[in-house]
Order: sequence, then C-alpha cells, then structure tokens
Amino acid sequence: MYMAKVVGSVVSTQKDKSLIGRKLMIVQPVDADGQASRAQEVAADTVGAGVGEYVLLVRGAGARRANHDVEKNERDVVDCAIVGIIDQFQTG
Amino acid sequence: MYMAKVVGSVVSTQKDKSLIGRKLMIVQPVDADGQASRAQEVAADTVGAGVGEYVLLVRGAGARRANHDVEKNERDVVDCAIVGIIDQFQTG
Amino acid sequence: MYMAKVVGSVVSTQKDKSLIGRKLMIVQPVDADGQASRAQEVAADTVGAGVGEYVLLVRGAGARRANHDVEKNERDVVDCAIVGIIDQFQTG
Amino acid sequence: MYMAKVVGSVVSTQKDKSLIGRKLMIVQPVDADGQASRAQEVAADTVGAGVGEYVLLVRGAGARRANHDVEKNERDVVDCAIVGIIDQFQTG
Amino acid sequence: MYMAKVVGSVVSTQKDKSLIGRKLMIVQPVDADGQASRAQEVAADTVGAGVGEYVLLVRGAGARRANHDVEKNERDVVDCAIVGIIDQFQTG
Repeated sequence: MYMAKVVGSVVSTQKDKSLIGRKLMIVQPVDADGQASRAQEVAADTVGAGVGEYVLLVRGAGARRANHDVEKNERDVVDCAIVGIIDQFQTG
Repeated sequence: MYMAKVVGSVVSTQKDKSLIGRKLMIVQPVDADGQASRAQEVAADTVGAGVGEYVLLVRGAGARRANHDVEKNERDVVDCAIVGIIDQFQTG
Repeated sequence: MYMAKVVGSVVSTQKDKSLIGRKLMIVQPVDADGQASRAQEVAADTVGAGVGEYVLLVRGAGARRANHDVEKNERDVVDCAIVGIIDQFQTG
Repeated sequence: MYMAKVVGSVVSTQKDKSLIGRKLMIVQPVDADGQASRAQEVAADTVGAGVGEYVLLVRGAGARRANHDVEKNERDVVDCAIVGIIDQFQTG
Repeated sequence: MYMAKVVGSVVSTQKDKSLIGRKLMIVQPVDADGQASRAQEVAADTVGAGVGEYVLLVRGAGARRANHDVEKNERDVVDCAIVGIIDQFQTG
C-alpha cells in the first residue's frame, strides 16, 4: 500500500462500462513527511476521500476487492483504489 | 491507473494470436500537468483513442477485463489497456 | 520480497472493512547495508513487528495469503504485508 | 506491454522444469525512438525473435498465457514473454 | 524475469509458516554486463544457488509455482524466487 495525497480528479465520458459512476481521483504518492515519492496515478475512490486529504492506496487485484458492488465487481477493470483516509502519520 | 498521452502505434505481423486485430498504441504516462512521468508502454485500445489524446491506462489482469470479446478473452496476453479518454484534468 | 525498516504507522478511521483491527506500518525498503532503496510503503503487520525493526515484505496476492483469518481473507484488500522479522543480514 | 530490443540470451543448465527447452532472451526495454528506458530483463520467446529485433513484451500472468503448450502451462513459472515482433513504430 | 547476483541471505526466526525451512537469499538485480540495475530483493531459492552465483529471478504468482511442495504451496506467501542458475550471458 502507498500513502498518497489527493490532488484532483479526471473527467472521462468515453470509458469502460465498469468505470461509470466511479470517482476517479488523481493521487500523488508521498512519504510519511508528505514529500512526493513516485509518479502520480489515478485511483477509484471507495471511502469518500476529497482533494487535499491523505489516503491509503491499494494496487492490483486488491483494488477490485474494495469494490463492494458485487454485480459490477466481476467486470471491474480498476487496478488502483483509495481504501482509507489517513488521519495521522506516527513516526519516530 | 495511469494518465497517459497516446503518441503512436506499433505495427507487428508476427505476434500472439490474441493480439490479431487489436490496436496497439504507444502511450507516454504523464502527470496531471501533462509532463512525462514514466517510461513509454504499449497499450491495447478498447475505447477508440487516437494519437494526441489523453487516456486512462489499466495494467495487469484488469487490462484483460477490458476485452469484452469473451471468446478471445481466455487466451488474451494483454497486460496494459486504454480504458478511458480523459476529457479534463481537475486539479487545485 | 523486500528488506525494509519499520519507521512508523498510520492511523485511519475511515477505511475498508477488511482493514479494521489491522496494524498498518510505514516501512522504508532498504538494501542489505540498511540504506533506503525505494519509496516508503504501508504494510499490514502479520508477525508482531515494531518500529525500528528490520522486516521482510511481501507484495500482491502473497500479502493476502499471510492473513490467516479465513473469514476476513476473502475480502482482504491488502497488497503488502510484513511476513518476517529479520534477525541478521549475512553478506560477503 | 513494453517495447524492447533483443540483446542476447542466457544459458542455464540448472533451472525450473518449466523452463527446459525455452529460449530465454535478454531484452532491453526501449522508447519509440529506440533509447533504453528501463533495466534489462529476461523474457521467454514465443514468436521466434532473434538478437537485434524489436519486440513486444508482456509481464505477469499474461506472459504465461502466451505459452500454448497446455501440459507445461500449469506449472509455468515464466513472468515475462516476447509476444510480438515489431515491424515499425508509427509516431508523430 | 530478472538477472541477479546472489549476495547473501537473511536470517529470520519469527516469520510466516510458509517460509519455515526456505533459503531466503539477498539478490542484486544486474544487467548482462553484471552491473547493478535495480534495488536488492530477497528471493526464495528453489535450485540450490549459492552466494556469488548469477541467477534468474521470477516475481509474483510465478514465484509460487516454483515451489513444488504441493502441501505448502497453497499458503505460500513468497513473491520472488530463484528459478535458474545462469551459466553464461550471450550478447553481441
């Protein structure tokens, strides 16, 4: 899992059916000190995260398990999802 | 998922059967400001994307779910697919 | 698998159900000489690791296999887990 | 998928049974302009590619789908395969 | 697959059950000229590789297929395995 900051969202009209109605957020992976650590990605939000919040990202098959809409899940193409809002980083 | 710009396509005569008839686009992953963020990849187009457009990329098993041709799907070797055309990046 | 040092933990109230009650540790991947080698990640602890310890990380589907709680396992979104505490690096 | 140039092969006597009789090529991932873009990998050839040719690489489970020898497929450990020979890059 | 040089091993007493009795080697991914190409990893040895040898690494689900101990295989958390000893790099 990665720590990331939500920095925006993408608008897409023409897309795979499984993405209809999903919130697709632009996320910037960060280290515990908030510094950018990797390239930006796009993640499907599953917890109601907003721009400016720090979140927990999951990749791959785990990201599809975060989609609890069983009917849509079987054809879900998502490979990155926001699965938690980070309240606090505890370090040191 | 990654944001990317379509920069071209590859022509391949000798290839795996599952790739016959597929549009194989060269894509340049980008950040929300359009700057290149990672190495170029080749993605199977599933939404009718053209050169110069910004798109949404999916990797791994999710990329094969974007192939809705059931018969071909079972032997599909694809590991990267274009699953959406990005109309707009909303940031800040 | 990666070698990593546990450097902290994240606190998250709003999160996927499968993460409730899990210890989510911030880990810094390192080389055998203890130098940081990649960007920080967040891993679910399965062996009782504490801050300052060197650990073994597993990614992807393997990380979910480390969750031996069968009932929760099926909807587990985790994609990175601590699966061992490293007592010693033997090199040279 | 990645574009790559075949730069050699590896010789291995002691290896997993599923690799016996496979051509294991050393490949250098490249961008559309032929410049090296990532670290070299080793890919199982499935299309008869030779040294100096530009090819299409697939990673992960997709790479095992390119092995059409059903009997061997079930225990195939391969995670990277050459699935096409690139005749031409069309860009610009 | 990656080429790597075995540079050591890790000793771990507290670990996932599936790792008991496994040789966990520290490996340095290299290019065909033997230069380090990526960050070090830890791989489960399946072919009897020793420190100083050049080996072939497999990642992900393929790494678990290299574990031919059927009973242990189902709960195997390993995501990286040594699947071959490289006798020779043939390039140029």
